[in-house]
Amino acid sequence: MRVGDKHFRTLWPKQPRSQCLQIIDQRQLPHDFVIEDLTGLQETARAIADMHVRGAGLIGATAAYGMYQAQCEKRDLQSAATQLLATRPTAVNLRWAVERMLQAAATGKDLYEEAIAVANEDANWCQRIGEHGVELIRRIARQKDASEPVNILTHCNAGWLAFVDFGSATAPIYKAQAEGINVHVWVDETRPRNQGAQLTMWELMQQNIPCTLIADNTGGHLMQHGMVDICLVGSDRTTRQGDVGNKIGTYLKALAAYDNGIPFYAAMPSSTIDWSIRDGIREIPIEQRDGTELLHARGLHDNRIIEALLAPAGAQTANYAFDVTPARLVTGIITERGICDAASAALESLYPEKQLGS
Amino acid sequence: MRVGDKHFRTLWPKQPRSQCLQIIDQRQLPHDFVIEDLTGLQETARAIADMHVRGAGLIGATAAYGMYQAQCEKRDLQSAATQLLATRPTAVNLRWAVERMLQAAATGKDLYEEAIAVANEDANWCQRIGEHGVELIRRIARQKDASEPVNILTHCNAGWLAFVDFGSATAPIYKAQAEGINVHVWVDETRPRNQGAQLTMWELMQQNIPCTLIADNTGGHLMQHGMVDICLVGSDRTTRQGDVGNKIGTYLKALAAYDNGIPFYAAMPSSTIDWSIRDGIREIPIEQRDGTELLHARGLHDNRIIEALLAPAGAQTANYAFDVTPARLVTGIITERGICDAASAALESLYPEKQLGS
Repeated sequence: MRVGDKHFRTLWPKQPRSQCLQIIDQRQLPHDFVIEDLTGLQETARAIADMHVRGAGLIGATAAYGMYQAQCEKRDLQSAATQLLATRPTAVNLRWAVERMLQAAATGKDLYEEAIAVANEDANWCQRIGEHGVELIRRIARQKDASEPVNILTHCNAGWLAFVDFGSATAPIYKAQAEGINVHVWVDETRPRNQGAQLTMWELMQQNIPCTLIADNTGGHLMQHGMVDICLVGSDRTTRQGDVGNKIGTYLKALAAYDNGIPFYAAMPSSTIDWSIRDGIREIPIEQRDGTELLHARGLHDNRIIEALLAPAGAQTANYAFDVTPARLVTGIITERGICDAASAALESLYPEKQLGS
Repeated sequence: MRVGDKHFRTLWPKQPRSQCLQIIDQRQLPHDFVIEDLTGLQETARAIADMHVRGAGLIGATAAYGMYQAQCEKRDLQSAATQLLATRPTAVNLRWAVERMLQAAATGKDLYEEAIAVANEDANWCQRIGEHGVELIRRIARQKDASEPVNILTHCNAGWLAFVDFGSATAPIYKAQAEGINVHVWVDETRPRNQGAQLTMWELMQQNIPCTLIADNTGGHLMQHGMVDICLVGSDRTTRQGDVGNKIGTYLKALAAYDNGIPFYAAMPSSTIDWSIRDGIREIPIEQRDGTELLHARGLHDNRIIEALLAPAGAQTANYAFDVTPARLVTGIITERGICDAASAALESLYPEKQLGS
């Protein structure tokens, strides 16, 4: 997508077949746009763990390139895989991408080509999510006066910065904009890491999409007052029955949408679906991150990015990074193959090859 | 309550009958404990508007003293009342206290005595809220092993800092502690002003109550996993039918409590009940505050309290300060007279003098 006048993806090889991967260091956004070199597996694994890169698709594509780096460094690929898998426990794309690379290595494929294919596929799938999802926005727009925007609420960043390009939840929004539909996005700031305030606001503003930052506490009030037409979120892991693991707080927005009769959709490439589990609340492992994220806010002061202490020093914290929205609260799932109900039968009819016993 | 070794209220006259009111400047907490002199009506009105003092009961008690200051300054009391009422539009205690002072003036009462009575009554009522509310905690404790704490979730600050002493939502917790019940409090940080992180955490830690800071996004996940036994929140305005206007985000926690079968109680002195309205969603005016609160986080950096910019400069914001939790999601209301259902008939049976036509 656009940054200033230029098109960027979120990662790219420094040169064709280079061992060096380049990424946007997302910890510096929105204040600085910094491109970072990841020269080998160690740096790549650390960049994932420390969230220089983050987001379902981008973690997968970065880890895939990490496996290529491991091969360049003549490492044991199985231990490289173990190291990469340990960086972020909730994201299923990570496992999906790493296993795909192991499989590619086992069958003698070119790991560079495979890592590039993972990235291209991610971008293509997001584009298709946009093509399917835009129909939901079109339908709402048809029922509104053209002067009134379609109001979309999103949580965290399921934008192009979370993938290789286009994003999942944002792809339908970018498509709607391209079609000339009047859209406006409510952006949850998404504490404690503020990916909404720092990343989603930045990327929407770069694409000139009207958007308004709100506290995570605000969405329920907006929905009670008819100010939200649809919720579009991403997912870090979705189960076979349509339970949606996503950034902590997603469940609260889904409850509010349900209570107010507002459609709530989760958008994701099928690489995010974990076909091996059903009950997300019991089976999706929820990453707990360091409490310093919560005790502090990271922001710009005197032209420097600093951390400000928000709470009493020594306060005890709990910092769960994700929660699970049960399928009963999810109006539908948008994937690269289309839109379906959040239910096993519906997901399996989009992905017949995943039917149990198939 | 205790600050270090000393007992404090949140406001007190500098000397008996002094025109000067002393308060704790809550904007400096938890990093600095600063006592501020408010020498007259202008300073008092500004201290309310700029939230040196905040919270339902404390706003009322401060405004009552402001009316005494206005009399000392020989101002027109009606315009003083108008000025004070304009400082915070949602808090009903403000109107209640100012009207009580106008009434007192009209009947020739001593306004100093009346302002002190407002403050004492607030403290007494909170104490009684504690006596009634502790029974809810006792009941849960009886069903648990003594080694397991009763887990209470609260939002924002409905503690002693929001009143003159004891607090509303916290009063039952302090009472439970005094009875030796093992309690633990989950504290929502409460963006954008972080009253949970900055005030509730501070006051609970000062009283040695075990407490854990969480992001506003986290409560739903905790409730899904059996980690919350009861939600206790305050209120800024409660309607005749039991709709609870409180800090933005309260509604989301009530939805999660309801979805998980967890009791959700709002605690308030009856001065917070607005008997003139029924439907809170339609009738409670919701204050919108400046977006700079949301664009920034206020915290400690290099031993100074600073503001850090969290979002892209120039980002559009919406900053609603309160939302309304409909009575259907509220298990009960705790007032100084007892606990009742969130419903007109139940509230009127506690306050028969408020029955329509009575």
